[in-house]
Amino acid sequence: MKTDKQEVSFNRGVPATQSLPKGKVSEVAASVLDRYGDSLLQYGSSRGFAPLRKKLADWYEGATSDGVLVGNGSLQILDMIANLYLGPGDTVVVEKPTYDRAITIFNRAGAEVRGVNLEQDGPDIEDLEDLLETHDPTLLYTIPDFQNPTGISASTKKREELAELTAEHGTLVVEDSPYRKLRYRGEEKPALRSFDTEGVVQISSFSKLVGPGIRVGWVVGNSEIIDELAVYAEDTYITPGLLSQGVVNHLVGEGWLEENVERLIGLYGPRLEATLGSLEEYFPEADWVRAQGGFFVGLWLPENTEVNEFYNGAEKENLILSSPEGFFPDRGGEDFVRLPFPALPPGRIEEGIKRLGRVWRSL
Amino acid sequence: MKTDKQEVSFNRGVPATQSLPKGKVSEVAASVLDRYGDSLLQYGSSRGFAPLRKKLADWYEGATSDGVLVGNGSLQILDMIANLYLGPGDTVVVEKPTYDRAITIFNRAGAEVRGVNLEQDGPDIEDLEDLLETHDPTLLYTIPDFQNPTGISASTKKREELAELTAEHGTLVVEDSPYRKLRYRGEEKPALRSFDTEGVVQISSFSKLVGPGIRVGWVVGNSEIIDELAVYAEDTYITPGLLSQGVVNHLVGEGWLEENVERLIGLYGPRLEATLGSLEEYFPEADWVRAQGGFFVGLWLPENTEVNEFYNGAEKENLILSSPEGFFPDRGGEDFVRLPFPALPPGRIEEGIKRLGRVWRSL
Repeated sequence: MKTDKQEVSFNRGVPATQSLPKGKVSEVAASVLDRYGDSLLQYGSSRGFAPLRKKLADWYEGATSDGVLVGNGSLQILDMIANLYLGPGDTVVVEKPTYDRAITIFNRAGAEVRGVNLEQDGPDIEDLEDLLETHDPTLLYTIPDFQNPTGISASTKKREELAELTAEHGTLVVEDSPYRKLRYRGEEKPALRSFDTEGVVQISSFSKLVGPGIRVGWVVGNSEIIDELAVYAEDTYITPGLLSQGVVNHLVGEGWLEENVERLIGLYGPRLEATLGSLEEYFPEADWVRAQGGFFVGLWLPENTEVNEFYNGAEKENLILSSPEGFFPDRGGEDFVRLPFPALPPGRIEEGIKRLGRVWRSL
Repeated sequence: MKTDKQEVSFNRGVPATQSLPKGKVSEVAASVLDRYGDSLLQYGSSRGFAPLRKKLADWYEGATSDGVLVGNGSLQILDMIANLYLGPGDTVVVEKPTYDRAITIFNRAGAEVRGVNLEQDGPDIEDLEDLLETHDPTLLYTIPDFQNPTGISASTKKREELAELTAEHGTLVVEDSPYRKLRYRGEEKPALRSFDTEGVVQISSFSKLVGPGIRVGWVVGNSEIIDELAVYAEDTYITPGLLSQGVVNHLVGEGWLEENVERLIGLYGPRLEATLGSLEEYFPEADWVRAQGGFFVGLWLPENTEVNEFYNGAEKENLILSSPEGFFPDRGGEDFVRLPFPALPPGRIEEGIKRLGRVWRSL
């Protein structure tokens, strides 16, 4: 029996439509084209728009423009890293669970993907050490801040340990940090890159800070890797989309971005609170992450839940959930539920979580 | 001895800076964001912006939106086709010479690249037949209109023969046509796709019609291939850059594009005439293509030219030429010179070609 209740979608991690700065982008586009139009409409460097690279380099201690490449979103930068450094015979270690599209990219590059157990304060370091010893991975992919799909942030201690271990083993680390600036509670932790600027490349994106449709992501890393990525990028798309890089350069330069991050925190913070509060109230039997920022709260169903029946029940309640299997590199994880909250008003979040609890109790 | 003559660059095939419509893009950006901002700044379909796909489908007989994908420039679409359909053990046939970046992409995908001889009226059909028989290629890559790097256009007869032969052999054909609308003399010839809508995928781009920095290219093909490309694109970059697709959609929709093509023909036509006329006048010993459109005139040095000395001499005359080897899949071609003319005023073209002739006569 299908209910006629209005759908609640906890499916994709997308920004709230109301957060998209269409008025602002519209306002700055003309002056950006006036000032830089000849460069922005022409072929340019595969490293991206130079003024924006310079501004991004200034965000990172010890970085210069030579260590920054700006591309068409951070996922494609990850794809280029995978295509450059991975192939059959290589192993990649990811958190278990992790961002499903990253797993797809590593598999597509021919690598074997192994998961390191993820605890409430970050990767299980013993498990990681074991994987480094036994599998000698080429690359480790990690999302230390407000991880997708769990919302977990790694502790400072674990970041330091992870950076040390991977440096010892010569494992290239990709630190993915698209949510890093979106902290709604607690204190900022040092980026993984701050412990090892040579062995860690950090990727990030304006998708969650401006809007995904502009497709502007970047990577900061040692200049050798950035040089190799620049050649790969040129051979793939010659020049990234420059029009939107010009717009972003303006938004960063005039201080609008910081203001917008404050606005986003004001919009999304209450949505995180609604998520955590509703879980406490309507589904206390579950086990969830006390996320402090980002886009997601990860939830594990109570032990011995009939998972298929739970998902069927959720569908009947018109709850749209991601299929959890995609987040796990080697199966398992059926009892996991990802709750992306930014696109839903608090009332819808509460309604959705109420239904989650009700479905579980009805099993 | 280095002269202090002002440089003449026949290096890259880039549009004239004066052709870039920065005023127009600036003018339409605001209304595009007003109307479509919520979609253009959000995640969207990996197939591209739906209104633009619809308009492009209308350009092609028998095509619907299901058969169109719009991406971040046509080179990346070619890269995705290569990654999807080619691997070690596959052979690709290209024209000899051809677009250097295409060769790089096929090599990178692990394929073996073989060249079919290119005559003044298109590929040597006997040579092609032989390659199809002996190498059973997976893919044939061709630029029938104003080919890069030669400027050659294939005759209607050869297009038909090529389409028939590849259909018989089940070879996937990629027809690259970024210059097709830029015809300065002669009559339009039917697209290769018109002879075989199933086996030919046609790729093209707004780089030469609007500006390269917007990075909007597209592919028209059978819906099975477009579906596979849509999955590959989603796994690579989720969504293409939508802001510039919104701008292009507006430019196409309001009829500006046709007007601009007329403007470009008015700008580039005299530059082609200057190229052909100057060759006649200052370098009659060479053998060149009577191109009728596009961006390039290909030139072969007279027989028995000391090629290295010629290139050294050109450098001393401050003439910047592309290295010709990149255009040839299996070496050879040292006596070839590509002359891209759109970015140079007629006087500079004349000066450059005068120097070319002088260098050759000084050997």
